[in-house]
Amino acid sequence: MSDATLFFKCENFQKAGAFKARGATNAIVCLSDEDAEKGVATTSSGNHGAALAKAAQIRKIPVTVIMPHNSSKIKFEAVKSYGAEIITCEPDHQSREAALDKLVFETGAAVIHPYNNENIIAGQGTAGIELMEDHPELDAVVTPVSGGGLLSGTSIAVNGMNSNTDVFGAEPEGADDAFQSFKAGEIIPNKTVETIADGLRAEIGTITFPIIQKNVTNIITLSETEIINAMRLIWERMKILVEPSSSIALAAVLKENQLFQGKKVGIMLSGGNVDLNDLPFKDS
Amino acid sequence: MSDATLFFKCENFQKAGAFKARGATNAIVCLSDEDAEKGVATTSSGNHGAALAKAAQIRKIPVTVIMPHNSSKIKFEAVKSYGAEIITCEPDHQSREAALDKLVFETGAAVIHPYNNENIIAGQGTAGIELMEDHPELDAVVTPVSGGGLLSGTSIAVNGMNSNTDVFGAEPEGADDAFQSFKAGEIIPNKTVETIADGLRAEIGTITFPIIQKNVTNIITLSETEIINAMRLIWERMKILVEPSSSIALAAVLKENQLFQGKKVGIMLSGGNVDLNDLPFKDS
Repeated sequence: MSDATLFFKCENFQKAGAFKARGATNAIVCLSDEDAEKGVATTSSGNHGAALAKAAQIRKIPVTVIMPHNSSKIKFEAVKSYGAEIITCEPDHQSREAALDKLVFETGAAVIHPYNNENIIAGQGTAGIELMEDHPELDAVVTPVSGGGLLSGTSIAVNGMNSNTDVFGAEPEGADDAFQSFKAGEIIPNKTVETIADGLRAEIGTITFPIIQKNVTNIITLSETEIINAMRLIWERMKILVEPSSSIALAAVLKENQLFQGKKVGIMLSGGNVDLNDLPFKDS
Repeated sequence: MSDATLFFKCENFQKAGAFKARGATNAIVCLSDEDAEKGVATTSSGNHGAALAKAAQIRKIPVTVIMPHNSSKIKFEAVKSYGAEIITCEPDHQSREAALDKLVFETGAAVIHPYNNENIIAGQGTAGIELMEDHPELDAVVTPVSGGGLLSGTSIAVNGMNSNTDVFGAEPEGADDAFQSFKAGEIIPNKTVETIADGLRAEIGTITFPIIQKNVTNIITLSETEIINAMRLIWERMKILVEPSSSIALAAVLKENQLFQGKKVGIMLSGGNVDLNDLPFKDS
């Protein structure tokens, strides 16, 4: 279907169901004992929150997760199951940051940003390292992009291991700040966050963006239909669960098939945390 | 959750999405050149029909699948895509058998039954061989049971490789002919076939039943709720798609957890062909 040879890095099978475990674990491990004592906090659409909660639980330190109230039920439950405290907020950048500031002021918790943090970026990059260790000959690697932790970390890893491998980001048209910023050469905020890909509604970071500018070949934007069709394809043919925020990377390869024709392409399936009570499949 | 250590044989990742490819391929391979020349035929319009068509295509022999004219478009297309000839009939047992008899009379085609056939049984048993090669120390293996091809083949393989490994069948309460027959010591037809597990509505075979009587420790029956809950659990936690006819084997281990406590148990996930437009998940 793609006229390319595809290799999937299945982070949906990762602990807690997403690549986020990599960065969160690295960030928790890197904390000094003094900082760790005061606990950690984060804002998150869910996967990072769960991953941080799990990593904090292992190091036995307090963890608070600030989540938009419209996050999926399964993501709330996952975070709760690792013993985190949850604070809900409105699903916008401002509300999230305000809640976080208040918490830090009160507790002195270390803020582990979901992506704008070098230890997080380094952790996420290990997914790219493993992919390139398995397939050092890849012509291209495509990952979803939201805040840019996975894309920036992956781009450092991939370019460091094979300078001939191009790295691409895949982003929803409905939340295309990375694409707009990449084109403009400066950070341009999201105009909307209207996408089913609930893991891709964040804004590109001040630390991640320059790394992406330097290492990434291009960012490909996808419609909601393209994202959902790729999700259905992966479920039906590969028999694995991925979330829309993951299937977008396959959607990018199918859409830009001329770009990838005859190439070996690594696709980062970033996570598999979907709410089975709220699936996007209709009669077709 | 089970108090046991579980090992999953993922036949949902098998070619065409189910273990059926094993038996169909073996049955086609075992045909003499003389028989093969005349082609093969079956009345199965589901996974077996598609698997047989695919296997026949590889050996380049004629294959005819007799299908009720009201079969779903998707089933027609799957069978057609492997180059099979399709003969449509009325959607009842009599019409199907009449069409088959006529075809065999005219062409001499070999009829490959979906399960009541020794070569099919031997083929399905290779799933059990592979499982035991990977984990020869298993205390028990649980497989779904319908016509009995998978269960009988698996039981021969497992008992042959480790006489200490018990084999169990898992069957829906709503189509429990294998359970009733096992208890009675003779074949008792299904009273109903009311189950979401659409792969488990067939009747136990005259060849498969005596093998099951000899090799199988017990047959465990499961309610619809138990089947669906296990399906949800596998989807959510393992991030893989299985059909209800597969999740029933995990449901059996969870239900009879005292039986399997502390044991190493192999679970046959027989297939992953589900209709995403018709899923059983509701708010819970």
